[in-house]
Amino acid sequence: MTDLPSIPSIDGPRLWTSIMDLARIGATQGGGVSRLALTDLDKEARCTFIKWAREAGCETRVDAIGNIFARRRGRSPDRPAILMGSHIDTQPGGGKFDGNYGVLAGLEIMRSLRDNNIETDADIEVVVWTNEEGSRFVPLMMGSGVFSGVCSLSDALSARDSEGVSVGEELTRIGFAGDGHVPHAVDSYFEAHIEQGPVLERTERTIGVVVGALGQRWFDCTVTGFESHAGPTPMTHRRDALQAASILIQRVVELAKSFAPNARGTVGQVAVHPNSRNVIPGRVHFSVDLRAEDEETLDSMASSLCETIETIKQNQSILIDLVEVSRVPAMRFDADCVALVDRSAREAGYDPLEIVSGAGHDAINLAKVAPSAMIFIPCEGGVSHNEIEHAEPDHVTAGANVLMRCICHRAGIVGVANPSH
Amino acid sequence: MTDLPSIPSIDGPRLWTSIMDLARIGATQGGGVSRLALTDLDKEARCTFIKWAREAGCETRVDAIGNIFARRRGRSPDRPAILMGSHIDTQPGGGKFDGNYGVLAGLEIMRSLRDNNIETDADIEVVVWTNEEGSRFVPLMMGSGVFSGVCSLSDALSARDSEGVSVGEELTRIGFAGDGHVPHAVDSYFEAHIEQGPVLERTERTIGVVVGALGQRWFDCTVTGFESHAGPTPMTHRRDALQAASILIQRVVELAKSFAPNARGTVGQVAVHPNSRNVIPGRVHFSVDLRAEDEETLDSMASSLCETIETIKQNQSILIDLVEVSRVPAMRFDADCVALVDRSAREAGYDPLEIVSGAGHDAINLAKVAPSAMIFIPCEGGVSHNEIEHAEPDHVTAGANVLMRCICHRAGIVGVANPSH
Repeated sequence: MTDLPSIPSIDGPRLWTSIMDLARIGATQGGGVSRLALTDLDKEARCTFIKWAREAGCETRVDAIGNIFARRRGRSPDRPAILMGSHIDTQPGGGKFDGNYGVLAGLEIMRSLRDNNIETDADIEVVVWTNEEGSRFVPLMMGSGVFSGVCSLSDALSARDSEGVSVGEELTRIGFAGDGHVPHAVDSYFEAHIEQGPVLERTERTIGVVVGALGQRWFDCTVTGFESHAGPTPMTHRRDALQAASILIQRVVELAKSFAPNARGTVGQVAVHPNSRNVIPGRVHFSVDLRAEDEETLDSMASSLCETIETIKQNQSILIDLVEVSRVPAMRFDADCVALVDRSAREAGYDPLEIVSGAGHDAINLAKVAPSAMIFIPCEGGVSHNEIEHAEPDHVTAGANVLMRCICHRAGIVGVANPSH
Repeated sequence: MTDLPSIPSIDGPRLWTSIMDLARIGATQGGGVSRLALTDLDKEARCTFIKWAREAGCETRVDAIGNIFARRRGRSPDRPAILMGSHIDTQPGGGKFDGNYGVLAGLEIMRSLRDNNIETDADIEVVVWTNEEGSRFVPLMMGSGVFSGVCSLSDALSARDSEGVSVGEELTRIGFAGDGHVPHAVDSYFEAHIEQGPVLERTERTIGVVVGALGQRWFDCTVTGFESHAGPTPMTHRRDALQAASILIQRVVELAKSFAPNARGTVGQVAVHPNSRNVIPGRVHFSVDLRAEDEETLDSMASSLCETIETIKQNQSILIDLVEVSRVPAMRFDADCVALVDRSAREAGYDPLEIVSGAGHDAINLAKVAPSAMIFIPCEGGVSHNEIEHAEPDHVTAGANVLMRCICHRAGIVGVANPSH
């Protein structure tokens, strides 16, 4: 009996080249990528992935929501597979790394294992999840949502874009309406991703061990005052909806600051009516996005916001209506998988930082059906969903090496497939 | 030699009927009027006015910017005429009274003088000023602006609407491109108008003696922060343009309140970029409308706003750009004319309130070339530029009777034209 081979390093320049090559499909003049889910560009990127995966020795298949699975067989076909992946759809005017990195890091692991003739015990699989971004079809994280039972297949297939075209129609059109809709057994799921925030860069860390994700509560707020002429209406006689709204806009931020460091409060969307220079606004709509590490904090933030609303309503002749439009509970990734990411990072020579994901990711859906974890790498200035999104080649390599270790530890290296190679 | 006749009262129901009749041209389902300057509807209203004025014994003529003058001859043709008037164009979805009231009150005075066979010493004239509202063509108060030299005739004629059609083209099309472009001699100008604010109603006064108009300084403010993802970006790492903007939005109102009662501060227009629920706003544009009774106050308000901007810029990595886009100096109407309005109101049995106009009016332009004054009457809830704009019949009558007295005092009643009538 020979010694088991050690875990190989991935080929960083090859991974980088693949990221750059895939980014040519839908490349924007500003250096980014605009490749919305289920468009012709998405089809081209999907076909490219399948071609590369087959060249790396994987079998590929597509499920009923268009998720692509590229499997490398292990020695024990009865064991459930270890999954890794992310998505290759982008925002309009998005970047080269968001999603694509996790998919191509997985592909690079397949290639490196093949190069090193390494056989794993369990099957391993790279997944491309359909429509993570939600830019064209709602809900976002659709493919992983259907896979994990968060969203029904029929609801997903009947979702329509702003032109009225459905997911089902587009899947058929681009040739990615597969037949396997029952999710297969999964041992665990690992997703490498750019952080999309500034924390790793500011703390000068290469690897983030993602311990969980912030809970989110989204609201629509409507403030109704009384529209009147900006000139003849004395300040004491006004019912200015924008003034009341601006108090709330500030309150949202104060609330998040009071629950530092892992709370967030954002007003991103504002509509003022009638939006005329010399008319006191009669109505203002705005969005509220509250996030926190645990449900208690999230609920405290929402309660405090409601208290401020009551105070404003008592002091001013203003109506304020707050409606919750979306809620995602705070979650923690599987402790064993998180520990494995931490151990793998340290084995690879990094001093990782525990981090909470502020954004949604396919891994959050997967965590409902399998032990899951994520590996973050820094992105320049924390910028994402932007054409200038950038990650350093060294960091791209580092994250993929940590992913390689997680997969090999979890799947088990059982031997060298073809020592004569 | 007989006694001079006393000043007659106007026919309130007839004036009310004329207001309602004119409001049928461009009537909206919501009970208002939508009759933009130089449209077919404006043409119809102009022709109706000319017909009525001729029936009341007036000679009519049109000047080069389309202002309509309806003159009733007095005994001394060498004396300059006493003018009264307003406008009959409306806002889209405007009301029945704004502008129309001042014109039709003038017309009613012509009718009442004729009914009572009263001859004045000076000529008197009702004017319909072109495009006061500015809803279709900028600048607003165009006809009175050209008449008083605030705006050149050629600039006014070449102004274009959003479809690219010019004022000159539309005047020709509707048959109101007159030839008299040199303003004639004017003794004085009186304009009756609804207040468009709540002050008279709240103080339970019927007549407002308008002593002047608030100065206005209009600004465009652009706040530039940095667009980033609402989830992964900790509060401490944000450059949220909307947060900075909301401080300024509140400051604009505080400033006006600190210079009570005759200062105003309004943010009416806001645009947030990219205006997405889960993106921290990178850029916010908003309008600032500051008004005050005197230039010193107006300048203090603007300086204080600039100080707040400097403080925000020092404390946050935010750029703020404030550009002045329009400035109208504070003005006082002619003391004699204002005193005449006050005296006329008291003669007619009212306890008038001195009031400062917060809005622009043709009289503000006329004041540059002739002694001028305005008479305000209440409007329900202070609402104007709105289909539900409403004035009480008693108030409509009262304002016209005060206007009648101003005109008769200024023009001089010299006799009964045709005692046998």
